[in-house]
Amino acid sequence: MRIVSGLQLRRLLGDWRGSGSAYQTLAQSIAGLIRDGRLPVEARLPAERELAGTLQVSRTTVAGAYERLRTEGYLRSRRGSGSVVTLPDGEPVGGRMGWVPSPSRDGVLDLAVASMPAPQPALDRAARAAVELLPRYATGLGYEARGLGELRETIAGTYRRRGLPTSAEEILVTNGGQHAWDLLLRLLSRPGERVLIECPTYPNAFAAVVGSGARAVPVGLGDADWDVELFTDTMRQANPALVYLIPDYQNPTGRLMPDATRAALVASAGRTGTYLISDESFTELGFDGGVSAPLASFEGGDRVICLGSMSKPYWGGLRIGWIRAGAPLIRRLSELRAIVDHSQPVFEQLLACELLKDADSPLVQRRLELTARRDALIAALHETLPDWSFRSPGGGMALWVRLEAAISTALAAAALRHGVIVAPGPRFGTAASMEHYLRIPYTLSPDELALAVARLSRAHLEVFRGGRAEPSVHIA
Amino acid sequence: MRIVSGLQLRRLLGDWRGSGSAYQTLAQSIAGLIRDGRLPVEARLPAERELAGTLQVSRTTVAGAYERLRTEGYLRSRRGSGSVVTLPDGEPVGGRMGWVPSPSRDGVLDLAVASMPAPQPALDRAARAAVELLPRYATGLGYEARGLGELRETIAGTYRRRGLPTSAEEILVTNGGQHAWDLLLRLLSRPGERVLIECPTYPNAFAAVVGSGARAVPVGLGDADWDVELFTDTMRQANPALVYLIPDYQNPTGRLMPDATRAALVASAGRTGTYLISDESFTELGFDGGVSAPLASFEGGDRVICLGSMSKPYWGGLRIGWIRAGAPLIRRLSELRAIVDHSQPVFEQLLACELLKDADSPLVQRRLELTARRDALIAALHETLPDWSFRSPGGGMALWVRLEAAISTALAAAALRHGVIVAPGPRFGTAASMEHYLRIPYTLSPDELALAVARLSRAHLEVFRGGRAEPSVHIA
Repeated sequence: MRIVSGLQLRRLLGDWRGSGSAYQTLAQSIAGLIRDGRLPVEARLPAERELAGTLQVSRTTVAGAYERLRTEGYLRSRRGSGSVVTLPDGEPVGGRMGWVPSPSRDGVLDLAVASMPAPQPALDRAARAAVELLPRYATGLGYEARGLGELRETIAGTYRRRGLPTSAEEILVTNGGQHAWDLLLRLLSRPGERVLIECPTYPNAFAAVVGSGARAVPVGLGDADWDVELFTDTMRQANPALVYLIPDYQNPTGRLMPDATRAALVASAGRTGTYLISDESFTELGFDGGVSAPLASFEGGDRVICLGSMSKPYWGGLRIGWIRAGAPLIRRLSELRAIVDHSQPVFEQLLACELLKDADSPLVQRRLELTARRDALIAALHETLPDWSFRSPGGGMALWVRLEAAISTALAAAALRHGVIVAPGPRFGTAASMEHYLRIPYTLSPDELALAVARLSRAHLEVFRGGRAEPSVHIA
Repeated sequence: MRIVSGLQLRRLLGDWRGSGSAYQTLAQSIAGLIRDGRLPVEARLPAERELAGTLQVSRTTVAGAYERLRTEGYLRSRRGSGSVVTLPDGEPVGGRMGWVPSPSRDGVLDLAVASMPAPQPALDRAARAAVELLPRYATGLGYEARGLGELRETIAGTYRRRGLPTSAEEILVTNGGQHAWDLLLRLLSRPGERVLIECPTYPNAFAAVVGSGARAVPVGLGDADWDVELFTDTMRQANPALVYLIPDYQNPTGRLMPDATRAALVASAGRTGTYLISDESFTELGFDGGVSAPLASFEGGDRVICLGSMSKPYWGGLRIGWIRAGAPLIRRLSELRAIVDHSQPVFEQLLACELLKDADSPLVQRRLELTARRDALIAALHETLPDWSFRSPGGGMALWVRLEAAISTALAAAALRHGVIVAPGPRFGTAASMEHYLRIPYTLSPDELALAVARLSRAHLEVFRGGRAEPSVHIA
C-alpha cells in the first residue's frame, strides 16, 4: 500500500486555502487530487495529527475534512490501517475492456483517436518498392519469429542514431505497440503482481494490465513534471514487476520527461530491480527536432525496455511496432510468440522497412503539419474557450486541457450531440478521476479543428445551462 | 478426473495377449496406451477386481500388471483414489513454450515444419493488385478491429460455398490461426478451467492452452477414428470451457473425421454447454476435392466456433487467419483485440483478399503438388523402411508413421546427425507419450523426400546399433 506523508500531501495541495471554511476547502482540495489521480486509489493518507501539524491547522479541521471525504466516498477508514483513498460510486479500478475506434460517420468530427491517415505519396512509393522485394522472400516459409533481419537492422539503426548502441538481435518486431506491451506483460508479470502506470495514461495500456491479471497501480503525475518522489516511493513500496512510462510527449498530457527525472527513475528501477518499460510511440514526433536522451541511455539503462511503433509517426494501418531489449529477453519473447501468433506478415515488414529508409522521410512533413495544427487548435481555444488552460506541447498529437470544472464526461456527451466525438478525461485516469480534463488531439486539419472548437463551445454552453445527457454512442 | 471403465480399457487394449506371461503382457499393453496418449495422464484406471472380470483374467494378473506399471512410473496409486495414470521421468504436462521453426541451414532437410513456400506467380499477382487498392484505404486511420469489410465478406463467402450461411459480421480477421486460438482462450477460458485437446495434436495449440493458465485435458484418438465415447465421457466429467478439434486432416494424424462422429461430438457439446473449436487450417487441402460437412453444419452447430487460416493452403508469411462465430462473440473478440494488438495490417488483408478471389486459384496446383509428394514419400518409405506403418491421408501435409518400437526421440536425434530435422512423436503428445510415432511432412520436393528417407533409414539403422545421442540443436 502506498503511504502518503504529511509533507508529500502538503506539496500536492500547494496553496489550497480558499474563501470557505477550512475543513470544507481542505476536503475539496483533497477530493480534487483524488479525482485527478494524483492521490492514487488505495493510497494511505497521513494521520490526522500528522497532517494538522504539517499544514499548521487544527486537528479538528483535518478530522472534519476526512469525515466529509468519507461521507462523499473518497476515503475509507479502518482502525489500525488509517484512511485509505477510494472512489465514489464503486466503479472498480480496471476490469474494463479496451476501446475500439468508432466507425466514421458523415459530418461527425472524430477527436477521440489521436491518429492520422497514411503519409502519401510515401506509402505508395514504399509499397511499390516492397512488391519488387517480395519474390525473394516468397521462396521461404515466411516465418521469422523475431521479424525480418533487414527490418530489425533498420530499427536498430534508429536507436544508434539516438546514441544507443543496438544490434538487430536486440529487436523483436511486433504487431504494433499495444502488442509489444501485451507480450511484455505476458512474459514478465504474473497474475496478482503489481504494474505501475502513470495516471493519466493511455487507456489501452492500462486495460492491458488489468486484462493480464496483474494489479495496476496508478501513480499520479505532478503539476509540471513526473513526481519523482511519488514514483520512487511507490516503486519501493509496491515492488512492481514492471513500470510503464511514456517519457516522450506523454499520452495524454503531451509532457516531455526532463533529463534529471529520467536519471532518477532509472536509478530507482535499478535499486528495486524492476523493469522500466519506455513507450516511445511519440518519440519521433518532437516538433523542434530536439529529442531527449532515451531512458535506456542513463546509468542502469539495462533495466529499460523500449517499445516503439510506426502507428503514430507513420500509419496505424501498418501494424508495425517493436521491442528493444537484451538479446536473451528478445529470444524468450520470440518463443512466447510461437504460442501467441508466430510472427509478423512479411510484406508489411518490407513496406515498413522501405518507409523507415525513405531518404525523403515523411516524418519531416508530418512534424510540420502537426505543428501547424497544434497552433491552429490553440488559437481557436484561446479565442473561443479562454477559461480552459493547457501547456503547448513540444511534440505528440494532443492537448491536455484543464477545464474550469469537473465536467468532462458531461461535456463529451454534449459534444457528441453537436457532432464532435471526444474522449473525456476519465478515460485516461482510474475510475472516475480526471473529470477536470479533456484530451483534444490536433490530428484534423486546421479548418476542421476550428469547426470542432466551435462545436465544443456550444456543447460547453449547454453543459452550463444544465442540459446534460448520456452520450448516445460508445465514446472511445 | 477422467475415469476409465473396464469396458473402455478392454476396447482400447483390443487383442492384447502375447507370448509372455499374462501380467507382463498386460502391463506392456497398458504402458503402450499411456505412451501413445490414448490413456490420458491423470485418468483413473478401473479397480483390479473390475478389470479382472472384464478381461476374464485372474485378479493376481491385474495386480501384477498394475504393480509393474507403478514400478515403471506409469501409475500412481493412493488409497481411496485408485490407480491414476502418470508418466515416467517426471516431465510435467505443459509448462513448455511453443516451438520456433529452425533457421534453414545448407544441406539440411527440414521436415519439422509442415509448411510450404508461397504459391507463385499467384502471390506476386495478388500483391500488385493490392498495391493499386492501397491508396483508397490510406486516407483512413487504418484500424478495423474486426478486419477489412471486403476480406470478411470474401471469407464469409468461403463458408457459404461449403453450405454454411455466414455473414461478414460473423468473421474476425486474425494474425493467423494460432492468434485466433489464443484470442479464444483469452476470452472464453479462465485460469484453472479445463480445455480438452486431442492427443496427439498440434503442439502449439497445446502449449497455448498451458500458457493461458487453463488446464489441458488430452483425449487420445482411437485407432482409426476419434473415440466418441472417450470424448463424450471426458466432456461430461471434465466440464471443459472449450474443446479443441482438428476435424479435417488432423494434425499430426492426417485423419478426416467421419460425419457420424461429427454429429455425435456436436451433440455432446450441446449437452454439456461447451464450445467446440473446429480448427480448419487444412480443410482446403483435401486432395480428392471432396470436403466433409463442417462441424458447424450439424444439429447444435451454434456451439461450434470455426478457426481458419491461409498459412497452410497459401503461405505462412501472410499471417491471415480468422474466427467464424456468432456476431455478439465476434464483437467481444474485437474489443479484446483492442488491448492485445488492435487489428491486422491493411495491406496484407488486401493481398489475402486478392488471393482468395483469384479465379486461377493456386489451391488447385497446391493440391496436385501435395498429392504427388505424398505418393513419393509413401513409395520411398515402402521401399526403404517397410516395417513402418501408416495410412495414406486424403489431405493435409504429413504422414503419421507408426514405428516398430518406441524410438521416436532417439530416431530424431540420429536423423539430425544425418541432415534431416524431424519432429519426434512426443512433440505432438503429452509429456513422454507418442514415442512409437513420427510425423513426416511431405512438403518438400519428391527428390528431397527420397533423400530424406534415405537419411532417415541410415539414422534408423544407427538407433538399432545402439548409437543414440541427444540432438545437437533444438528440434521443432
